[in-house]
Amino acid sequence: MAGPHPDVAAARRAVRETLADLPPGARVLVACSGGADSLALAAATAFVAPRAGWQAGAVVVDHRLQDGSVEVARVAAAQCRDLGLDPVVVREVDVDGGARGTGAGGPEAAARTARYAALADAAAQAGAAAVLLGHTLDDQAETVLLGLARGSGARSLAGMPPVRGLWHRPFLGLRRTQTEQVCRAVGLDFIRDPTNAASGPWRAADGSPLRRAAVRERALPALTEALGPGVVEALGRTAAHLARDTDLLDALAQDLLDRAVAAAGEGAGGAAGPDDDAPHPTDDSGVTLDVAVLADAHPALRTRALHAAALRAGATPGALAAVHVEALDALVTRYHGQGAVPLPGPVLGRRRCGRLTLAPPDPGSPAGPART
Amino acid sequence: MAGPHPDVAAARRAVRETLADLPPGARVLVACSGGADSLALAAATAFVAPRAGWQAGAVVVDHRLQDGSVEVARVAAAQCRDLGLDPVVVREVDVDGGARGTGAGGPEAAARTARYAALADAAAQAGAAAVLLGHTLDDQAETVLLGLARGSGARSLAGMPPVRGLWHRPFLGLRRTQTEQVCRAVGLDFIRDPTNAASGPWRAADGSPLRRAAVRERALPALTEALGPGVVEALGRTAAHLARDTDLLDALAQDLLDRAVAAAGEGAGGAAGPDDDAPHPTDDSGVTLDVAVLADAHPALRTRALHAAALRAGATPGALAAVHVEALDALVTRYHGQGAVPLPGPVLGRRRCGRLTLAPPDPGSPAGPART
Repeated sequence: MAGPHPDVAAARRAVRETLADLPPGARVLVACSGGADSLALAAATAFVAPRAGWQAGAVVVDHRLQDGSVEVARVAAAQCRDLGLDPVVVREVDVDGGARGTGAGGPEAAARTARYAALADAAAQAGAAAVLLGHTLDDQAETVLLGLARGSGARSLAGMPPVRGLWHRPFLGLRRTQTEQVCRAVGLDFIRDPTNAASGPWRAADGSPLRRAAVRERALPALTEALGPGVVEALGRTAAHLARDTDLLDALAQDLLDRAVAAAGEGAGGAAGPDDDAPHPTDDSGVTLDVAVLADAHPALRTRALHAAALRAGATPGALAAVHVEALDALVTRYHGQGAVPLPGPVLGRRRCGRLTLAPPDPGSPAGPART
Repeated sequence: MAGPHPDVAAARRAVRETLADLPPGARVLVACSGGADSLALAAATAFVAPRAGWQAGAVVVDHRLQDGSVEVARVAAAQCRDLGLDPVVVREVDVDGGARGTGAGGPEAAARTARYAALADAAAQAGAAAVLLGHTLDDQAETVLLGLARGSGARSLAGMPPVRGLWHRPFLGLRRTQTEQVCRAVGLDFIRDPTNAASGPWRAADGSPLRRAAVRERALPALTEALGPGVVEALGRTAAHLARDTDLLDALAQDLLDRAVAAAGEGAGGAAGPDDDAPHPTDDSGVTLDVAVLADAHPALRTRALHAAALRAGATPGALAAVHVEALDALVTRYHGQGAVPLPGPVLGRRRCGRLTLAPPDPGSPAGPART
């Protein structure tokens, strides 16, 4: 007897590897949209899990963004049941109409946020230790290119992690076309994700951009034409390398931040330096850092530590940008008496007495939120 | 009197900042192709340099790749002389016909190699302390995208450095359109670089790919359409962030490499471990590393140290790829008695007696160059 189709074998191997991190007997849920990637994942998981002692179910999320989404979800759920997955639940999600298009990420981000919340809730109800997501190497390449648009360095180019908490992505090494082959080989009817418009102008009904669809349909083909057919694989390798770098750099930056906070605590109450304002008490709601410790550090770590300190002090994650971190860095390395640095949140960064304090502004202060 | 055009002011400021790193009285050469970027650089340098005590000349490289290149070079040189630059020299470069298209980077890389060699030679003859290059933010964005195709991590995405040795790139913060505005504002006739074909199929006469032209004319416009108009700036910021990370990570990896070499030297001559082959003498032409020191390190540093060690042992820089480094890493972290790892050069990586040795193969050895 011939073995399984090579893509079927690759899909099963990928699922086996991701499940090996979980205790046998654990329950996992496959997140299934009815697209080729998640149906292939459902098929591979239905094959692998029972043979090795895991219980596998599925959850189908209906975003109700397109006509016919109810039927798409019903067909996907029926195929998951036919594969032997149990339980198979369908979750309807209302993407917040008010947030669509107006948030930082537009309608694609709003749909993603709603989808992950529904999946996490379904996992909690089913007592699942993991949710398996069907993201492929193509999705990873698109994520890296979307990160390029932010221009905020290694973290935004590191793509999606194979494992983070509840979420497992066993197919990050498989091409999308391989998942289509899996569906054909095992006789599953997949739909093309209706949110992935194949032709421009890649705008939602309200005019907001559908960036991921535009990257998929326009930018990646153009890059492949310019750079050759290995671009998707190269973007995947880039993500893996930068994720590894980010892991180390974030840990070293955390050490630096801890040292800068500890040194500021030791030095609190000391005399003001000649180039500083009068001392003022540390604000318990903020973060205070020793400038000398920061100034001695490598800029790759100092800027990461300042970014982390700003978030700890309450700055808004999506709105905190490289320009804000550079302004904080100037307080450390190019100080000439400049005033407080306003950050989104709002949070103010001020240098006083050899210390940098990041804290919400005093509403009565002239350096408060009105200052930009 | 009105001040200079804003783009003229920006160009002069950029040149002023780069010259500030050089001693007054030093001679600099502007590398001029006759394109807008390098003519704008010539104009800004001719204005700034004499006012602050530097001597500025120019060198025009004629690649002789196009009909009319002699006339292009003559006009560029004449404009440089009119600006007051002195000396102005023209260098004719024969790109090696045999190497064109067959090298790793194709004809664009061959032309670049020939150009830099001619510029370095001209600088040596003129006693110049620096060569100013007209690369813009657009060139930097293209370089980052070209690096993506290699998929080899932060270093290949870090773009061109603003300063490295002889080479200074003051315009990495300026858009190409700004340099065109400078030329118009000061009355210079620029040509569009004739190697930048505006339409496909972006192939040289011999069929080899013109990747940079394809990125410029096809991939960057598609990315801009997908991600918005800030893509070029975002790619420039990405390069700057990753250059900073690479600087730190390379320094830490060098420390690791030094420690692994030192530890292997201390342990040399010790008894063989039960899982290792018989001890053999250290090859003076190779590099020997202590496996335990490497195994304790973070993978972001270990893989960089292994890459550096392979180069030190004689591996071919352009051909040494991530897959080779991963195979060396497996000798350290997933050792189950596997054989020698062949690297381009050729160099062999072998694990013996708790040490990893990278060295050219013994021609008589069965694990020699014939093994792949």
